[in-house]
Amino acid sequence: MLSLSSVMDSPVLRSYFTYATIVILKMMLMSPLTSYFRLTRKVFANLEDTKLGSSSTDKKLVRTDPDVERVRRSHQNDLENIVPFVVIGLLYALTAPELSAALLHFRIFAGARIFHTVAYVCALPQPSRGLGFMLGLLVTFSMAYRVLSTVLLL
Amino acid sequence: MLSLSSVMDSPVLRSYFTYATIVILKMMLMSPLTSYFRLTRKVFANLEDTKLGSSSTDKKLVRTDPDVERVRRSHQNDLENIVPFVVIGLLYALTAPELSAALLHFRIFAGARIFHTVAYVCALPQPSRGLGFMLGLLVTFSMAYRVLSTVLLL
Amino acid sequence: MLSLSSVMDSPVLRSYFTYATIVILKMMLMSPLTSYFRLTRKVFANLEDTKLGSSSTDKKLVRTDPDVERVRRSHQNDLENIVPFVVIGLLYALTAPELSAALLHFRIFAGARIFHTVAYVCALPQPSRGLGFMLGLLVTFSMAYRVLSTVLLL
Repeated sequence: MLSLSSVMDSPVLRSYFTYATIVILKMMLMSPLTSYFRLTRKVFANLEDTKLGSSSTDKKLVRTDPDVERVRRSHQNDLENIVPFVVIGLLYALTAPELSAALLHFRIFAGARIFHTVAYVCALPQPSRGLGFMLGLLVTFSMAYRVLSTVLLL
Repeated sequence: MLSLSSVMDSPVLRSYFTYATIVILKMMLMSPLTSYFRLTRKVFANLEDTKLGSSSTDKKLVRTDPDVERVRRSHQNDLENIVPFVVIGLLYALTAPELSAALLHFRIFAGARIFHTVAYVCALPQPSRGLGFMLGLLVTFSMAYRVLSTVLLL
Repeated sequence: MLSLSSVMDSPVLRSYFTYATIVILKMMLMSPLTSYFRLTRKVFANLEDTKLGSSSTDKKLVRTDPDVERVRRSHQNDLENIVPFVVIGLLYALTAPELSAALLHFRIFAGARIFHTVAYVCALPQPSRGLGFMLGLLVTFSMAYRVLSTVLLL
């Protein structure tokens, strides 16, 4: 069965576990980052949240802010790209690729997504963000191609 | 292989399967809940949907509504937190933790997320929703820590 | 362990791998589709992106557009439905269902979601999109029922 010993015996699975956890943690850190921007800029999505920054609720604080929306779009882009990577990556890791090839895929993806977040939140000039996005997409497509060419059964 | 018999032999995997399914179902129920609010409040996102509540399309019904947006934000927060839990939880369950520790993680997470949804949809005063959110985040971080400390291979 | 040979020996797992990859790829294609609409309609979410279509940044191009928002809602609906399918589908495939039953679930889901996207992006009259959505939801619920009735451990 897929037990601890079998995972520890497979370097590909171990590296998949490591990188999947890292990119998911990176994605989850967008939530506290959004909260940080909301609290420092006093911009809230719910009336009951406005009390967090002051002593009473305040309807004027329920509004949108360009910086908060920027972090939220970055978070949304993570959801749209990191979740497919994690799913396709597991199937890919189970097709027994070479360790060096697997590590190359995982490392490029992790680097591309971290760069994408920096480029998004700091609003670096294009096409820096676009390149990070495309690189992540290509890694996932490359893994999906190997999965489909290995196990295809329609 | 990871077959039915091997899953049934591992109480940790069985409890993971159970709680992962429960929280995913909870998340999926947000879709019908959104539809319910949309139909009862007559608030639609698409022009072609307005015909669902009446005999002809009506442009005025394509608008936003605070209650519908509240349910949608709750759904979005589920996506941002339940998906990471499901991914990290599978890797965690495969690191062969103690059954009692695994159940503690899974139960606290499921409870925290159900409480989070109730607090969000009913607009309970803060920090009730924030506590549900933080509790879920901490459970996932705790599982991620165990995964990384067990299988790390960069 | 869950190795390539054990996956290749199980037609249910092979068909799950195939359909999970297909629906995830379908979901990922919504990103380039959004970019295509943004570039052809000159509608951007970030100030730094407006330079992609012209020689200088232009604040007026940072706006929303009904067609772009339609594609984005379709993408969001995919996230809310395809991710649960992929998770529940893996657990379902591991409960050793009949191959014919598994293929029936996977094929209906993939067809329903592709139809849903076409109905959404082309704005087909309701209830075509609603039917595609409901069908996908029912397939996932049916698989979740089998998972819970097989391995339940609370």
